[in-house]
Amino acid sequence: MTEFVKAIETKSISLELANKVLDAALVKGKEMGIPFSIAIVDRTGNLKAFAAMDGAPVLSLDIAQNKAFSAAAYNRATHEWYDRLKDDPPLLHGIVHTPRLVIFGGGYPIKLDGELIGGIGVSGGHYTHDMQVCEAGLEVLQEITQG
Amino acid sequence: MTEFVKAIETKSISLELANKVLDAALVKGKEMGIPFSIAIVDRTGNLKAFAAMDGAPVLSLDIAQNKAFSAAAYNRATHEWYDRLKDDPPLLHGIVHTPRLVIFGGGYPIKLDGELIGGIGVSGGHYTHDMQVCEAGLEVLQEITQG
Amino acid sequence: MTEFVKAIETKSISLELANKVLDAALVKGKEMGIPFSIAIVDRTGNLKAFAAMDGAPVLSLDIAQNKAFSAAAYNRATHEWYDRLKDDPPLLHGIVHTPRLVIFGGGYPIKLDGELIGGIGVSGGHYTHDMQVCEAGLEVLQEITQG
Amino acid sequence: MTEFVKAIETKSISLELANKVLDAALVKGKEMGIPFSIAIVDRTGNLKAFAAMDGAPVLSLDIAQNKAFSAAAYNRATHEWYDRLKDDPPLLHGIVHTPRLVIFGGGYPIKLDGELIGGIGVSGGHYTHDMQVCEAGLEVLQEITQG
Repeated sequence: MTEFVKAIETKSISLELANKVLDAALVKGKEMGIPFSIAIVDRTGNLKAFAAMDGAPVLSLDIAQNKAFSAAAYNRATHEWYDRLKDDPPLLHGIVHTPRLVIFGGGYPIKLDGELIGGIGVSGGHYTHDMQVCEAGLEVLQEITQG
Repeated sequence: MTEFVKAIETKSISLELANKVLDAALVKGKEMGIPFSIAIVDRTGNLKAFAAMDGAPVLSLDIAQNKAFSAAAYNRATHEWYDRLKDDPPLLHGIVHTPRLVIFGGGYPIKLDGELIGGIGVSGGHYTHDMQVCEAGLEVLQEITQG
Repeated sequence: MTEFVKAIETKSISLELANKVLDAALVKGKEMGIPFSIAIVDRTGNLKAFAAMDGAPVLSLDIAQNKAFSAAAYNRATHEWYDRLKDDPPLLHGIVHTPRLVIFGGGYPIKLDGELIGGIGVSGGHYTHDMQVCEAGLEVLQEITQG
Repeated sequence: MTEFVKAIETKSISLELANKVLDAALVKGKEMGIPFSIAIVDRTGNLKAFAAMDGAPVLSLDIAQNKAFSAAAYNRATHEWYDRLKDDPPLLHGIVHTPRLVIFGGGYPIKLDGELIGGIGVSGGHYTHDMQVCEAGLEVLQEITQG
């Protein structure tokens, strides 16, 4: 007999952890000297913490949030999309039109002990720059897990 | 002969100051024991810094941002709207439908030496609670001006 | 036998006239010392000419355009709506939710020899101020017709 | 000890200058005999001044505004995007879906003494035509700086 599942338990990033990740990303951003927008979302893609560095381009505000949303909402780093799309024309010409879905680098799922708890998204430089800022933020997770 | 005005100079809140205001608001929010969303926008209403306390209602995420936007975009605290609307039926039934305009408490302009530089918006409690959190954040401005 | 109607001829405001109306409205706006946004739309409500005075509130940009749109799209000054709504609860609580419809003052049809050719919308002050700016702009039409 | 940065000072185009740029662009547009839409936005991408020449295609109204927005919001001429995208497939298939981002010619940042103060966007012809109209508008800036 199958059990009646009444509720699903999920974990989502706390504001305290979100701010640690955000702060680590900001340190990297300042070091790189590019004005980035940095967004942390919870497991469901809703905004948890955000900072726009002084001078961040207006367009970066939404792109950062959409990258974080994309990463959490699909549990996939945004730079992993293109390899899966490039030889699949219906997806390449279709799924890229999904509102808020970003398919270039700068968005990563945030995981705790292998479990999705949120997302980080960065915009303001080329996506290779944005990815470095995300990775600096995510180092906080590695320190926590190892600590 | 009048001078040819080429550009308008304006000041907008820095991320450093935005984060100080946000932190002070968060301290008050925790003290009150209600999970608030808190948004700081720049002078033009664009998001600068944001935090959603753990457990903040999903609806509060956008309302906080819209309150901050409303306050900056019209240079008026959101709780000041209703007194101006209540005896002016066309506005009371009309302007309330303006996208992103919030006409209840919880959004304040942020001013430096009397000049608009941004806005703060808080949502999560009754608007009277939201207003207390805003005011705690704005005390940072008074300390800076006096210091 | 009824005639087969192949096409409808309509007149729409020219850019030259739109700019004359806009300029006259701007003169009034400067005289009043309030930073207004002023929009002129064509007969179908599409934007024809626009100016935001220095310091115009961010919210006024869209409201001015929506007032001009409302006036042209319904061939009715926006301040005439409320009297028709106030004793008609389904409309009062219903039609006010129509996107882009503004039901308070500051939007007027632009007519040439009694025929709708466009609309003007102004935002930035109380709607009674906005209406004065519109009326100053519309005086250009009276001069043209009389001249 | 680093100084506490409270506010960022920025310059944004005045209505007076915006109208001079718009007028110069209109002169060029008439000379070319193509009905263009021409938009001037401020530093944050908000509409400052606009004109649609008689007969401008309906689609050009928004495209002109979006080009001006794109140029100001990213501080980059819109025709510079494609060279950066063409060998970067994730961006080529991804960033083009960003709302309001235009990646073909006809949008330019407006700079005063090297500082971003706004944007101009033109639509109505092929983008090579649109670019000529923008450039005619931007000559006003060169005259001012040299004068």
